[in-house]
Amino acid sequence: MSAATRSGARRDDGVSPLRALRTALADVTTSSPARFAIVVFTALILITTALLALPIARAGERQWTPLADALFTAVSAICVTGLSTVDMATHWSVFGNIVIVLAMQIGGIGVLTMASILGLVVAKRMGLRAKLVAASDTNPSRVHAGPVSESQAVRLGEIGTLLATVALSAIVIELAITALVVPRLLIEGFDPWSALWMGFYLSLSAFTNTGFVPFEQGMAIFASDVWMLSVLSIAVFLGAIGFPVIFALARWVKSRARLSVHAKLTLATTLVLLALGWVAIGLLEWNNQQTLGGQDPWNRPLTAGFISMMTRSGGLSTIDIGEMNGSTLLVLDMLMFVGGGSASTAGGIKVTTLAVLFLAAIAEARGVKDMEAFERRIPVDVLRLAVSVVLWGATIVSASSIIVLHITKDPLDLVLFDVISAFATCGLSAGLTGPDLEEPAKYVLAATMWAGRVGTVTLAAALAASHRRQLFRRPEERPIVG
Amino acid sequence: MSAATRSGARRDDGVSPLRALRTALADVTTSSPARFAIVVFTALILITTALLALPIARAGERQWTPLADALFTAVSAICVTGLSTVDMATHWSVFGNIVIVLAMQIGGIGVLTMASILGLVVAKRMGLRAKLVAASDTNPSRVHAGPVSESQAVRLGEIGTLLATVALSAIVIELAITALVVPRLLIEGFDPWSALWMGFYLSLSAFTNTGFVPFEQGMAIFASDVWMLSVLSIAVFLGAIGFPVIFALARWVKSRARLSVHAKLTLATTLVLLALGWVAIGLLEWNNQQTLGGQDPWNRPLTAGFISMMTRSGGLSTIDIGEMNGSTLLVLDMLMFVGGGSASTAGGIKVTTLAVLFLAAIAEARGVKDMEAFERRIPVDVLRLAVSVVLWGATIVSASSIIVLHITKDPLDLVLFDVISAFATCGLSAGLTGPDLEEPAKYVLAATMWAGRVGTVTLAAALAASHRRQLFRRPEERPIVG
Ligand SMILES: [K+]
Ligand SMILES: [K+]
Repeated sequence: MSAATRSGARRDDGVSPLRALRTALADVTTSSPARFAIVVFTALILITTALLALPIARAGERQWTPLADALFTAVSAICVTGLSTVDMATHWSVFGNIVIVLAMQIGGIGVLTMASILGLVVAKRMGLRAKLVAASDTNPSRVHAGPVSESQAVRLGEIGTLLATVALSAIVIELAITALVVPRLLIEGFDPWSALWMGFYLSLSAFTNTGFVPFEQGMAIFASDVWMLSVLSIAVFLGAIGFPVIFALARWVKSRARLSVHAKLTLATTLVLLALGWVAIGLLEWNNQQTLGGQDPWNRPLTAGFISMMTRSGGLSTIDIGEMNGSTLLVLDMLMFVGGGSASTAGGIKVTTLAVLFLAAIAEARGVKDMEAFERRIPVDVLRLAVSVVLWGATIVSASSIIVLHITKDPLDLVLFDVISAFATCGLSAGLTGPDLEEPAKYVLAATMWAGRVGTVTLAAALAASHRRQLFRRPEERPIVG
Repeated sequence: MSAATRSGARRDDGVSPLRALRTALADVTTSSPARFAIVVFTALILITTALLALPIARAGERQWTPLADALFTAVSAICVTGLSTVDMATHWSVFGNIVIVLAMQIGGIGVLTMASILGLVVAKRMGLRAKLVAASDTNPSRVHAGPVSESQAVRLGEIGTLLATVALSAIVIELAITALVVPRLLIEGFDPWSALWMGFYLSLSAFTNTGFVPFEQGMAIFASDVWMLSVLSIAVFLGAIGFPVIFALARWVKSRARLSVHAKLTLATTLVLLALGWVAIGLLEWNNQQTLGGQDPWNRPLTAGFISMMTRSGGLSTIDIGEMNGSTLLVLDMLMFVGGGSASTAGGIKVTTLAVLFLAAIAEARGVKDMEAFERRIPVDVLRLAVSVVLWGATIVSASSIIVLHITKDPLDLVLFDVISAFATCGLSAGLTGPDLEEPAKYVLAATMWAGRVGTVTLAAALAASHRRQLFRRPEERPIVG
């Protein structure tokens, strides 16, 4: 901070404590955006936990909710995961439900903007519009140009504008989806106000990739409804590809602007994973009477496609996941682990991370020096970042699985599924997560959601923020691998 | 091939068909070493299968062995895996046992030399001693210098010398281990000839990382024997670090020659994995009455350390793996997947592959441009190769697990364990592999062993062999990952 600014800030102290606070906040966000994100997330979770633990948040005879369940629900809502250890339809009072809805909304929008802010901070000072465009175009994930100097740091006002832009876009999209869902609910026989409320709730739940359902009967009542499942799939898809890609698509529709490599990679990988999951689930479950086999033949591909889309991390389901074959669960494990797009409401290691790994293998197989995609060269440090993210994810999932396995002694199928679902904030459950889950395991799963959500969002920024100039290079030596 | 050499070969045709054959063979090995390795491996497996299927190979009333079992045993022996679908102690006749022992020996030595040959071919023409040294020093896994020209190609004579050197070293080491094992067997009460035979068999089984046991009671009789378990652990360790590292260590002992980065990385990662597995197995199984809990407290760390070492891919065990906790099985899964050293008798993705991934993540976290280890810079194309190998391994294990799960409907714990054990040619079993395994699943597991063994050995060479000059570079663009 220059001396001029410092004295300026000091002069304003008496006049405007708010401004001092804003300056301090701006300092924190720009000096260590990763730490800032972690602090905000954790604070939000703790506040939500405290509110949910209160007797007033509980339905029926006003009792305290056990800490493990309050914390689990708070983490699940803030991290837009959708797993739950209590009966979400009956456990909470109106107050409790309002807290949960707010947490889910803040979590959903928060993750989006947090990721974008981190990108912003790293991408240095530019106009906001240019920055949003840049997020899909050029250098959002990291810059190799030394520490960010003060003149390049992002101001809090800019962050506010970004937050407003993203939140506004989110609400516009949510309202559009609501408009498509409500008529269907009216036809189903809901009264207008219920249809409006539930329609908005469901749209928000789908677009933020949370996966909570407002109906007591769950999503099963729409198991054969092509319209409803398609609309919700599109909502989850839009939420999961992330705002950089949504903005890029919008610009493409408006002015045929070239799609960035990031947008193309995200869309292509998402569609490939959707197709692979669709076929695999359809084939493996076709004759399982407890799942697809119990439906009309025409209904089965619909369900398979819907479930495949939900692994991006929507987490809605029209069938009982726990009744699926072990082979299908393993397929879902892998799909969930990958998750959705970067800077989106989805979790997982992200589709572009997987794509970059495959691009590296393809370049290696072709014997060429550069990784390439859509006629562009991908710089090699992106591969290192991708490897770091995958190692981080694999470590979290392994450690969590080993601990939960040891606590519960449940079969690996169940444990691995719910742990990956928690890590990738997907919210599908094979049956492990529930009221009967051992209390220590609830804490471990909550920590997994936290690490999966906060970790992947901030890891890139944390790594991107640090940069050291190398003064000399060591002699090269080549170990044998493989 | 130059015109002079071509006419020279033609002139000698009448004089020496052997020389023509040698020339042809040299052409194949140098023009496509990967294809050569795959052809040789597959041919050996088919020959062994045919011999084992014969009634003469079976004990008792001279019947044909079912194709699935003959093939499974052949693959298991040639790939030095040690899994079996028949009772190895009673199913085979003397002839059958001789075939198996030969297959195991050829497979064990073969893999070593094959890997070294591939390295040789790629590393271009040098003196043999220099080459063996080079294998641990500089450029064995790939060279970025365009196609290998004829003058740089490896001659068959060289390959023969290399094979002889490696085989001789292997036999010297095996005899040394035998000398340590036999006295213990004599004390145990075996007659001298049995002790000699079984001692050599066991030493060979351990050093080649096969994991077959000559005693009808299995390894359990030595469950509390510090001497025996230590010697076998050292044998498995030596086999698993690979010849480049063994030679480097020998030179270091003789003349304090600097250890290469490859040798240091292999040793360091192997020791870290050994320690991690040791602690994890010890903690997780301490009170399991079916495994460690049933032993004296002083015996438990011994067993835990032995099992941890065996996941490199020795595959011996003094306890029933199937009785372990799910958490421990998952730990073993991960340890087995990593496997041993490159160009060794061990399987898996290899310890250096894992190390390179972590070096990349560390460089990323420190914000430096180069991956570094032991004061040397690791070139970035090694990371791409490592990523390719891991993707290959993960794909094989996933595909195989999904198919086996769907065939057998067995729990994921068992299936994943045995599939990874097959992929990494480790040979430990949680109980899936056996006479009752569905026949299609036997074929899938056999294919997994084949892919795991042939794949990782040749993948590096296949990728290294291909090289294209890039005439232009595309513009750079940076997707967001994580
Ligand atoms: K979710
Ligand atoms: K083995």
